[in-house]
Amino acid sequence: MAQKGNLMTARPDIRVLDATLRDGGLVNNFNFSDEFVSALYRANVKAGVDYMEFGYKASKELFDVNKFGKWKFCDEADIRAIVGDNKSDMKIAVMTDVGRCDYKNDILPKSESVIDMIRVATYVHQMPAAIDMIEDCKAKGYEVVCNIMAISNAKEADLEQALEMVANSSADGIYIVDSYGSLYPEQIRDIADKYTEIAEKYGKYVGMHAHNNQQLAFANTIEATARGVSYLDATMMSMGRGAGNCAMELLISFLKNPKYNIFPVMKFIEEHMIPLKESGLVWGYDIPYLLTGRLNQHPSSAIDYMKEERTDYTNFYTDLLDK
Amino acid sequence: MAQKGNLMTARPDIRVLDATLRDGGLVNNFNFSDEFVSALYRANVKAGVDYMEFGYKASKELFDVNKFGKWKFCDEADIRAIVGDNKSDMKIAVMTDVGRCDYKNDILPKSESVIDMIRVATYVHQMPAAIDMIEDCKAKGYEVVCNIMAISNAKEADLEQALEMVANSSADGIYIVDSYGSLYPEQIRDIADKYTEIAEKYGKYVGMHAHNNQQLAFANTIEATARGVSYLDATMMSMGRGAGNCAMELLISFLKNPKYNIFPVMKFIEEHMIPLKESGLVWGYDIPYLLTGRLNQHPSSAIDYMKEERTDYTNFYTDLLDK
Repeated sequence: MAQKGNLMTARPDIRVLDATLRDGGLVNNFNFSDEFVSALYRANVKAGVDYMEFGYKASKELFDVNKFGKWKFCDEADIRAIVGDNKSDMKIAVMTDVGRCDYKNDILPKSESVIDMIRVATYVHQMPAAIDMIEDCKAKGYEVVCNIMAISNAKEADLEQALEMVANSSADGIYIVDSYGSLYPEQIRDIADKYTEIAEKYGKYVGMHAHNNQQLAFANTIEATARGVSYLDATMMSMGRGAGNCAMELLISFLKNPKYNIFPVMKFIEEHMIPLKESGLVWGYDIPYLLTGRLNQHPSSAIDYMKEERTDYTNFYTDLLDK
Repeated sequence: MAQKGNLMTARPDIRVLDATLRDGGLVNNFNFSDEFVSALYRANVKAGVDYMEFGYKASKELFDVNKFGKWKFCDEADIRAIVGDNKSDMKIAVMTDVGRCDYKNDILPKSESVIDMIRVATYVHQMPAAIDMIEDCKAKGYEVVCNIMAISNAKEADLEQALEMVANSSADGIYIVDSYGSLYPEQIRDIADKYTEIAEKYGKYVGMHAHNNQQLAFANTIEATARGVSYLDATMMSMGRGAGNCAMELLISFLKNPKYNIFPVMKFIEEHMIPLKESGLVWGYDIPYLLTGRLNQHPSSAIDYMKEERTDYTNFYTDLLDK
């Protein structure tokens, strides 16, 4: 595929999605203060961010509401307490995990909801359930995207079939998700070409959700962009599971469209993210995440290791090699 | 230019250069303990690192020896106190800054020195002096490379002329140096194509020295590699001026040649780099460096700002915009 756009111009198809509450919520069990969430909403609107993901629509049958903050569940009333009727140009997104969401009951018809976009997160082996969820949400009136996770561990033939299934569904977009932060720009370009080829054929768009295990989240995001990917996930100060995501401050600095404004992003970081870091929450690139990323493993063992504040990396590495 | 090599194979022309003491020395005025330097030497040898840069050959007329650690000057005796006659496969490098090195006197004939490689660092506007230094060092018997710095601020026509001058000199190699950490992978690929084209014509190799202001040091290094660049600078835990460099742990994890071994790198980091970080030395990606990188400015103002432990990024940014 040819390059799309260049470093001097702005692509009108680009959309930035802030996933701070959702992926960052995996760091603190979604226990963000209302003040934080309100300030994030205002900062994103001012910064020109196109979508703000508020969290998950997790099933209250499966998850104890007393063990998580409210953004694990994203009740309509909780979102409205922050955004009112959302009289801004920014759209509201939530994520639904296949198998963890009682979508038939918990996702309201769009006409009754301030949510604009449902992001269906699925593993390759769950595709029929994902398609069912996509069609349900689409029929209710939402913009729907499908995030196929952990593709670095999926068989290519399975991934191709999954892509065909999404392509033939009513989904509006398909996301490339590097869950383990194990992919290099060279691989991301090939994957982006594959996704954009099928997406263009079926009139859908492609998104990128990167993890920073090898300090490649921003690089992979802008390389995917140059291959035609247009929906770009980022989080404030990279906040997200393990090594975190593509940093919003890097992405907004990079994009050339004058609608994007770095100033509110920096203001939010200095007023809200720095205190969060100083409160003791741990995320962002570190050597244990590099090792799980390099070995194409889920970051959970690195997250546990970091919580113990250990720095005996050689022991951790030999443990990983045994897995 | 076509891609060179791929993610499954090892390129025999690749060389890794550890610049921890030299670029990291800019963080602590070269005040490394002998124990640290000895351990780094042993770790690099075990890890399969090809070159270890010990520091600068700075003029003692220009710089007060009482104000810097010994690796600012790299006396022959000091290097030999660490490496003896260097009975290893790893080569020893030092850097000489144009205008800051009394090279005619301070650089011994190769037959009297344990140093293997001289790295001549120059700005585009100093090229005649750089060429004089290159020829002097080459005549003395060294492998010589030329690091043209701050190319993101140089006029293209000037840079092309500088490249022609190095190409026609006796230098063995030419380095791409992203001093401000302002270049994106897309630009690095074009620059690498330009450098490798001229280098191949004149029988020289090309190197990459990246800075991590936008979390792109590793990405830019491996993207340059894929375009035929073969000498790759890295530092332990990214230690280097401001946002630091390409992390050795990322680079060694990436390279496929079985001669490279990540284990001694991790061991060195846990035993020596973590204590250095905990001692209060500050380097590595942070938002002020992102801002100077994005604005294509020298990181000095960000370094001063970080030393003051400030996090009022919006004030810093508006100050930068006034420069």
